Amino acid sequence: MTVESAIPEHLRTGRTRHRRIPDDFAPPYPSFVARSSTAVRQVVMAYLGIQFRGERPPLAVLDAAFAAVDGPGHHDRARVDGPDGTTEVVSIAYWDDPAAFDRWFAAHRESWLGDAVRDGHGRWAEIIRPTVEEHETLFSSPDRAEGVAVLADGMSGEVQEHAYWGGMRDRIPLSQTDPMAPSGEPVVESGGGRVRVRPGSGLCLIRSGQDWTATEGDERAMYLRDVEPVLRAGMDFLRDEGRAIGCYANRYATVVEDGEPVDRSFGMSWWRSLDALERWAESHPTHVAIFGAAMKYLMAMGPAARLRLYHEVSVATADEQCFEYVDCVPGTGLMG
Amino acid sequence: MTVESAIPEHLRTGRTRHRRIPDDFAPPYPSFVARSSTAVRQVVMAYLGIQFRGERPPLAVLDAAFAAVDGPGHHDRARVDGPDGTTEVVSIAYWDDPAAFDRWFAAHRESWLGDAVRDGHGRWAEIIRPTVEEHETLFSSPDRAEGVAVLADGMSGEVQEHAYWGGMRDRIPLSQTDPMAPSGEPVVESGGGRVRVRPGSGLCLIRSGQDWTATEGDERAMYLRDVEPVLRAGMDFLRDEGRAIGCYANRYATVVEDGEPVDRSFGMSWWRSLDALERWAESHPTHVAIFGAAMKYLMAMGPAARLRLYHEVSVATADEQCFEYVDCVPGTGLMG
Repeated sequence: MTVESAIPEHLRTGRTRHRRIPDDFAPPYPSFVARSSTAVRQVVMAYLGIQFRGERPPLAVLDAAFAAVDGPGHHDRARVDGPDGTTEVVSIAYWDDPAAFDRWFAAHRESWLGDAVRDGHGRWAEIIRPTVEEHETLFSSPDRAEGVAVLADGMSGEVQEHAYWGGMRDRIPLSQTDPMAPSGEPVVESGGGRVRVRPGSGLCLIRSGQDWTATEGDERAMYLRDVEPVLRAGMDFLRDEGRAIGCYANRYATVVEDGEPVDRSFGMSWWRSLDALERWAESHPTHVAIFGAAMKYLMAMGPAARLRLYHEVSVATADEQCFEYVDCVPGTGLMG
Repeated sequence: MTVESAIPEHLRTGRTRHRRIPDDFAPPYPSFVARSSTAVRQVVMAYLGIQFRGERPPLAVLDAAFAAVDGPGHHDRARVDGPDGTTEVVSIAYWDDPAAFDRWFAAHRESWLGDAVRDGHGRWAEIIRPTVEEHETLFSSPDRAEGVAVLADGMSGEVQEHAYWGGMRDRIPLSQTDPMAPSGEPVVESGGGRVRVRPGSGLCLIRSGQDWTATEGDERAMYLRDVEPVLRAGMDFLRDEGRAIGCYANRYATVVEDGEPVDRSFGMSWWRSLDALERWAESHPTHVAIFGAAMKYLMAMGPAARLRLYHEVSVATADEQCFEYVDCVPGTGLMG
């Protein structure tokens, strides 16, 4: 089986930094990445959250905005239950043309975050626009895109840079020449129930998803009994205690379709840097436990496993970020 | 707490390859490395094994050789029980002067491997002589040297390059400029019950040890019940199935003193390359299980843990190796 580099040909550059693997590295199992048109230079990932207790407020205005001209190429929606009894419904929208996003946001910003729509619910926007050099994806199977990959032309063949620690970094094209070191500390500006946050450069976002729709019987039971609780414990740790290790915020979300939860979930977290994310993933007991549980499960199931896993990871410079919170409870997102 | 680089100042060079950590990386727990005199340029690590069933043959001749002029600066001895009912007693001897070793070996080689001493027991020598650029050590506490570190002047302060995957490579001075890629395949020459093996360049040796002498009560029980069996399973896997992943040989040994086993053990294994060792350590289920068990144990014990851990890792070019087996059972060491 030949493998291809996760870095597409048009983004390969003369290296000043090496990959962690030798050129003949053969990953022990297959994984795939999204392949975008070479015309795509930058994407926008917009997480738009509404915060409430009890009944979910209507989202018809946002849905209409998504359907309007310059709307996102793809969006999905998920629910996060907070420990304080608040719930967030997060709509995640993706554009592969920042100019289209800018026009869209100019037209619809006020309908989401403006003073005129303040109704006591918290509303927020967490938006980054990484270039194609600044993000990567990974999929356990090539047959179902999620997230930013839905915008892409399709999936790669089997890629080489995965199944080792450091693969995430090695899949990001910028890693060929740049350590992606963070700089600056977050600046928080607040007043009148409105909070804007400007994190530093090198801010890192991961959305890491699980899809157990196709699992049945023993596999399903094993996922829900042996893997999911360990994953949840790790997500809770990051939410409650992550700041000490560079995790600014974490949400463990259940995807909803037509308002109902489906058998798909994801963690999304904001990190001070890719490096901080790497360190947690590689050596913190909470993620070592997740990794161990997932590995045990995948070894038990072998190639018959029907659980699908994916993630997308981005780094962003300071001018590629927008964080705004209106009437949100303390500690929401990057407010804290 | 300031940390120092594991690479001593006199071995630092202009880098063409980066470390995996940023310069401000702060390891979450302390570790230490051996510090040798700057006069030391190369060491010799000689594993001398005798293979038998039943009663251990006498080792008085070898002991006398060790005590003779040009003998090793340090040696210890360990026992390995094989799955086929054979036992090996391995004497591990260290020199920090290859010329002294060469004189010693010229004087005593025949008394260990010569035709005149063949008595039906298997005898073998597995010897490498890595330069100081080609090896590293790591200790969980600075108060008790083992292995090659006994030859050193002392221990470092807390070092920076540990507690992340890739630390092992980053501690080897050669990693500053060299990927330490393997080249060549092992060549086996045999005849008349004598086998010589010439592995390729880049061959890698790890000796990774555990010392539970100072543990008591719950800690001791936890180590013996929760950690040791998982470690043993990983060692058995490498011994029986390691070749497919680049592990040529593995022995899980119990240290003996005055002929009696003590509460210290180590795994020693020969790998096609440092890279192959990294891949197993980072992602194979057998080592993920070891790592998970050790982490759970160390988290439970915290700084009160009295288990001591250490390792030494070397890479060697083809001309820094000597492997010879006399009257050994099939599959011994690198014979297979």
